[in-house]
Amino acid sequence: MAALARSVLVTGSNRGIGLELVRQLAASPRPPQHIFATCRDPGGPRGKALQELAAQHPSIKLVQLDTVNLPSIRGAVRAVGSHLKDQGLNLLINNAGISSHATLLSLDSQEMLSVFATNAIGPLQVAKEFLPLLEKAAKGSGQEGLSCSRAAIINVSTKLGSIGLCLGVHQAPMYPYRASKAAQNMVTRCLAVELQDKGILCTAIHPGWVKTDMGTEKAPLTVEHSVRGILTVLASLSQDTSGAFLDWEGNSLPW
Amino acid sequence: MAALARSVLVTGSNRGIGLELVRQLAASPRPPQHIFATCRDPGGPRGKALQELAAQHPSIKLVQLDTVNLPSIRGAVRAVGSHLKDQGLNLLINNAGISSHATLLSLDSQEMLSVFATNAIGPLQVAKEFLPLLEKAAKGSGQEGLSCSRAAIINVSTKLGSIGLCLGVHQAPMYPYRASKAAQNMVTRCLAVELQDKGILCTAIHPGWVKTDMGTEKAPLTVEHSVRGILTVLASLSQDTSGAFLDWEGNSLPW
Repeated sequence: MAALARSVLVTGSNRGIGLELVRQLAASPRPPQHIFATCRDPGGPRGKALQELAAQHPSIKLVQLDTVNLPSIRGAVRAVGSHLKDQGLNLLINNAGISSHATLLSLDSQEMLSVFATNAIGPLQVAKEFLPLLEKAAKGSGQEGLSCSRAAIINVSTKLGSIGLCLGVHQAPMYPYRASKAAQNMVTRCLAVELQDKGILCTAIHPGWVKTDMGTEKAPLTVEHSVRGILTVLASLSQDTSGAFLDWEGNSLPW
Repeated sequence: MAALARSVLVTGSNRGIGLELVRQLAASPRPPQHIFATCRDPGGPRGKALQELAAQHPSIKLVQLDTVNLPSIRGAVRAVGSHLKDQGLNLLINNAGISSHATLLSLDSQEMLSVFATNAIGPLQVAKEFLPLLEKAAKGSGQEGLSCSRAAIINVSTKLGSIGLCLGVHQAPMYPYRASKAAQNMVTRCLAVELQDKGILCTAIHPGWVKTDMGTEKAPLTVEHSVRGILTVLASLSQDTSGAFLDWEGNSLPW
């Protein structure tokens, strides 16, 4: 089986789904040549698990990237560009995000703005700044069509961001989180339409409800199981699924 | 024909669709008893057309309301409450919104935050603060089921906020505007689910592409035609269309 992509970047990779993505990519039989594991403070105490993982796998490079800070994003683009030399970046996984359990009654507009900034604007800014490296990968790939091995942006979304499935708000009111993820889904769709002619795929993935700090212990899925599914889905993506909203098993979700 | 509702509040009513909503409501054969026409500066030069209209119709009350300013929203709730005395507010029309033509390349995260604040958070905050008056109307109506004459929140949305219809971003890149309206649609849907048991309807309406300052002269629809359609649709809303996304002719749109 070919590598999913020659180079992959994962945001928010110091824990949860991001960390497991890096772990499984690095441990795969044919790992990517470059795995850029990014987070806000890769050298700090919250990056400890990632540091230990990177120590075992020379393909993993830790890169500082705060997705709501434009100078930080641009610094990461430079760092990644210098590692890649004349190659482009094949696969950008926008995984960083925050949760918010605010309900209608506990709603605070400043908190809601901050959720929008991280979950909707962050992935868009990161995509915009890494676009030259993604375009370089798309052009230099020698491949036709769209795929993660050529050039792709994957936005980690959630079923809670599906407007069509929002029928049981009583179980999860979460207005800011849901609204920010619906906005992120629109961003995914706009990017997919705009970038397809440049050879760049863009797809939204719902990882399932996963046992992580965000998903809590009540979640039914292990992070290993979810990420195994996500990586299988990513390997299958093509022109037909660019602009789609899929779960970790490849099932299509309504917007 | 019965009045659409005994009391109606319209945000952003100093121009465009908001102004025309107030005009047609006031001029209808059976006008609402109270039409609260709100905007940021009803007494200022940008409120001139609204002032002239109010001078002709005693049912129109001008109320200051800046939808991104919580003290302003709360001041409007008090002003409206004192007019209504022991009645509730039947119909809240969240019409205030801003456009943004930012593309992927011209994107600015501060501008995008401001578009989210006005188009997604504003309507939610306004709904939240007016909720006690809407609940009072729902309880005091003596009606069963959901309708605009009982208690309703109408969010003026746009087809550009439909993720499913986002196929031609080349014609209208508008990432921040589209994303903010997708977020607003999620807010509509969450509110519809949460408030149905309280007897409050919530529906998103696409007014069409209308010749206004926002829609420009290139738009195919006059504001009179669009608003006539919207008011007809509002009169037809029920339990079945709470939580729906409809255009000015009553056609259902995909999320």
